[in-house]
Amino acid sequence: MKIAVLPGDGIGKEIVKEAIKVLNALDEKFEMEEAPVGGAGYEAKGHPLPDSTLALAKEADAILFGAVGDWKYDSLERALRPEQAILGLRKHLQLFANFRPAICYPQLTGASSLKPEIVSGLDILIVRELNGDVYFGTPRGNRKAPDGPFEGAREGFDTMRYSEPEVQRIAHVAFQAAQKRGKRLTSVDKANVLETSQLWKDVMIDVAKQYPDVELSHMYVDNAAMQLVKAPKSFDVIVTGNLFGDILSDQAAMLTGSIGMLPSASLDKNNKGLYEPSHGSAPDIAGKGIANPLATILSAAMMLRYSLNKAEQAERIEKAVQKVLEAGYRTGDIATPGCRQVGTAEMGDAVLAAL
Amino acid sequence: MKIAVLPGDGIGKEIVKEAIKVLNALDEKFEMEEAPVGGAGYEAKGHPLPDSTLALAKEADAILFGAVGDWKYDSLERALRPEQAILGLRKHLQLFANFRPAICYPQLTGASSLKPEIVSGLDILIVRELNGDVYFGTPRGNRKAPDGPFEGAREGFDTMRYSEPEVQRIAHVAFQAAQKRGKRLTSVDKANVLETSQLWKDVMIDVAKQYPDVELSHMYVDNAAMQLVKAPKSFDVIVTGNLFGDILSDQAAMLTGSIGMLPSASLDKNNKGLYEPSHGSAPDIAGKGIANPLATILSAAMMLRYSLNKAEQAERIEKAVQKVLEAGYRTGDIATPGCRQVGTAEMGDAVLAAL
Ligand SMILES: CC(C)[C@H](C(=O)O)[C@@H](O)C(=O)O
Ligand SMILES: CC(C)[C@H](C(=O)O)[C@@H](O)C(=O)O
Repeated sequence: MKIAVLPGDGIGKEIVKEAIKVLNALDEKFEMEEAPVGGAGYEAKGHPLPDSTLALAKEADAILFGAVGDWKYDSLERALRPEQAILGLRKHLQLFANFRPAICYPQLTGASSLKPEIVSGLDILIVRELNGDVYFGTPRGNRKAPDGPFEGAREGFDTMRYSEPEVQRIAHVAFQAAQKRGKRLTSVDKANVLETSQLWKDVMIDVAKQYPDVELSHMYVDNAAMQLVKAPKSFDVIVTGNLFGDILSDQAAMLTGSIGMLPSASLDKNNKGLYEPSHGSAPDIAGKGIANPLATILSAAMMLRYSLNKAEQAERIEKAVQKVLEAGYRTGDIATPGCRQVGTAEMGDAVLAAL
Repeated sequence: MKIAVLPGDGIGKEIVKEAIKVLNALDEKFEMEEAPVGGAGYEAKGHPLPDSTLALAKEADAILFGAVGDWKYDSLERALRPEQAILGLRKHLQLFANFRPAICYPQLTGASSLKPEIVSGLDILIVRELNGDVYFGTPRGNRKAPDGPFEGAREGFDTMRYSEPEVQRIAHVAFQAAQKRGKRLTSVDKANVLETSQLWKDVMIDVAKQYPDVELSHMYVDNAAMQLVKAPKSFDVIVTGNLFGDILSDQAAMLTGSIGMLPSASLDKNNKGLYEPSHGSAPDIAGKGIANPLATILSAAMMLRYSLNKAEQAERIEKAVQKVLEAGYRTGDIATPGCRQVGTAEMGDAVLAAL
């Protein structure tokens, strides 16, 4: 089995290195091949998602992704900016199902900006659709406004759209995820305003008939943003579109106070997937050896479970991370007085030792 | 000067009644005329925004609005549902500038689900554009997908769009608001993905040249949702589009833990405006006399300041509310052990007494 390794920019290289150390320590051996992506892709080949990188990603059984982005690319035209790499991979590989867990580790509850009683034991899963919505809808661009009160003025426009089969496939993924957890699914939309959301909601209600054991509820996105602040533990699984999922999954991650711990998976219909930490490329701390590699190590564990069919190995890694936390190891982002503060490589070593 | 009074549904009637009591106690006298809106409009005249209600709103100098919505209208077609009233008023009266303060009152810091040190002293202002974006963009509807991987399938679609003059007018409002406060403006967009956002950002940068005393920064909406959780006090004024503003302003309101205290204003270019509490119609507690009227009373104060040019009277009301809080009066939503828990009318009376 072959893993495409795409470290990307900023802290990407450092954190992916630790995840590879951990993967190499397993009994199972994997073929790994590295390729540049994001700003690194642009530097090496003139494009954030070079053809050779895309070809490798297509050919591999799974993709381990670091992070992309750096201020130094801010002045490039949008098509060449690092983020296009991740959008391109999602679209070309049809990675439509994004799993973003927001878990508050017992040892890290204090890191949250929320009161401990609000977040302790938090364990929610956001399932975000990743191939549709206003992210990819056409037509889009710039033009003279064709109508309305500002007819003729310069305008920017995008198309928000979801089709029935697109919503069906993410609905099935979300219902099945809920079946394996607390059996409660909240579909988030803005059906009181948007036609796209009304279709989304109708299809969710329809698919729900095939999952009588899962309790489906609906919530408007503004209310969801409020309830995530007020009572995040009231959720089990949330399913939502690409745009709302972008916002709510980041909000939910930040509730835990330890976004440096949170992995993510983006899967296609055959469970081939791209695995990346939920945090970004953090160019401000890149190269300093202080970034937290645990989200990437846990992303590798997710990869073993979902794409490589090695659930036991995944569990070994997850348990090792637990042990390391229990032993008091902390990178700077989650450090507390009295902890054993370590750098990126030492944290990777600690996980290795705990394996 | 004439005020259109639109109590609406749920707790709307109860809370608006208290605001009127307070307005009537001022030296200045105002002509007030009431009309049904939302579910009440539908019951009385078959439409959430009856023609006669819209005519009154157009004719008046300002509008005091309660809240709309009730589950019992959930099965109506969208065009007849209560929310259409507020969307219709915003659009017909060109109320494009929505002011949503998120303030953490010192006496109520404990009501927040966030740690006191994160929210104490919080005072941010969200300026939300209210007439454009995917809320009103055409074309929109249902159709067979005209292209893409699911060509021919049933799809729902909407158009996200902003034109240059639309962004310019909200930019001026936001920069001027920032000038009167901490002089820091954060423009929130998703310019790394959306054409609409790229235009938004370009226009913000352009308008900024006219406000050299205000520091403009840009933030992606997903990051803004995170920073609001992590460090809400790092913001001064946030300006954003209709959809992102819907989500972020509710999130910000909930950070305070006392959304029952938060007023809002929606203004046209001549500062004629609609004033409503940030919370909703709460049908679950309607008619029980326990709703918090303070957000509505503070909305009336905003009305005096922005639309009726009575800043002194506005301040009198705001000070009276402060006094009432200091004296320990609390409705159920913000009650703490040892407070003087009161109902809607008693809270209104307490404000009157403090005037
Ligand atoms: C980088 C950006 C295009 C991307 C997105 O908006 O999807 C990121 O925010 C994410 O959530 O993975
Ligand atoms: C009721 C609804 C249409 C409305 C909106 O989305 O604007 C509400 O959420 C608000 O923020 O005033």
